[in-house]
Amino acid sequence: MTSPAEIDLLGVLAYGELVAFERTAADAKLAPNLADKAALGAMAVAEFAHYEKVSAHLAKLGQDPFEAMQPFMEPLNQFHNTLTPRDWLEGLLKAYVGDGITNDFYREISAHIDPETANLVSEVLGDVGHANFSITRIREAIEKDPKVSGRLALWGRRLMGEMISQATLVAATRPALQDLFLRPSGSDAATSATELVVMVNRLTVGHAKRMDVLGLAS
Amino acid sequence: MTSPAEIDLLGVLAYGELVAFERTAADAKLAPNLADKAALGAMAVAEFAHYEKVSAHLAKLGQDPFEAMQPFMEPLNQFHNTLTPRDWLEGLLKAYVGDGITNDFYREISAHIDPETANLVSEVLGDVGHANFSITRIREAIEKDPKVSGRLALWGRRLMGEMISQATLVAATRPALQDLFLRPSGSDAATSATELVVMVNRLTVGHAKRMDVLGLAS
Repeated sequence: MTSPAEIDLLGVLAYGELVAFERTAADAKLAPNLADKAALGAMAVAEFAHYEKVSAHLAKLGQDPFEAMQPFMEPLNQFHNTLTPRDWLEGLLKAYVGDGITNDFYREISAHIDPETANLVSEVLGDVGHANFSITRIREAIEKDPKVSGRLALWGRRLMGEMISQATLVAATRPALQDLFLRPSGSDAATSATELVVMVNRLTVGHAKRMDVLGLAS
Repeated sequence: MTSPAEIDLLGVLAYGELVAFERTAADAKLAPNLADKAALGAMAVAEFAHYEKVSAHLAKLGQDPFEAMQPFMEPLNQFHNTLTPRDWLEGLLKAYVGDGITNDFYREISAHIDPETANLVSEVLGDVGHANFSITRIREAIEKDPKVSGRLALWGRRLMGEMISQATLVAATRPALQDLFLRPSGSDAATSATELVVMVNRLTVGHAKRMDVLGLAS
């Protein structure tokens, strides 16, 4: 029997990958040359394959994948519409920062879920080459024109802030999901509030490390 | 030995599929529900696979795929930027009308090219389900609100006009490609002008038939 929290987890993961596909394809349009455009296209295709895999798993569990995804459409669309990259570099940084925080977040909860689901999550979150590609291109751009650093650092801070705020909103409306990562051992409300602060701190540290890799202030 | 005309043909086909991928993914964002979004996503992925196939074939022929695609970037981008769909239905009609004309066009020339290339072209132009999907959704929309017919008919005429005008521009700058479909038997300039008129007529008839299927005036 799959718990409501795991259905939620798979639903948000499926919709996240479907949106990742759309956004990466949109970033491909901003690519400065054909080779980079084709590289982004291949990553978008890999993200769509991830969506299909999670969707098929939901169906196997007897769940309607679209129904499972529905509750997460608004917050994820909200996040993406608020922070639409204005250019190629902002798109790359968004993918790098967004995937990084997402992966850290799923890692936080994977210890508390059914092993089969945990395996699927870890497989789907396997990097499609996006991170290294983004790091290389952003570093090249900064080397060529150090002035872009300031703008990208600011963009990175906005992304992190918006992700935390949307995740908090989602958690507030999906208690089962929230319980999954905040009260793994049936702890009380006070412990759970402390857990939340501690988790946000860990995510912030992970984000800072990724910005460091690019030489950007977080 | 592959002729310059066939390299051109493969180049425009590869770039056409890469752009089709980007546009279909962009249309997925306009989908009214998750099932339609996922359906468009799957078609975009199939179009990217077509791009990869043509690109691999160019590489096998010893050609740099990006170099072969380069001359066709500007006219194809120009076409797509001039006619960006404003909504879901315009996106579907554009894919249906655009793919239809493109397929008719490639069919016109396939008799004059190397059989291996002709096979690849016909395989890559195999419909990914886009046409039937578009027909169904557009008919449903017209049935629900007959007023959309007028707007879509106008949109269809604009698409056809712009495709013919961009194709003419491309032909003017790529004499080898032009020769492929206008002078298959080494005919003279006068015959070739007549051929052009006849071909545009055939394409127009094909377009009118497709608009008819939707009950739209062409």
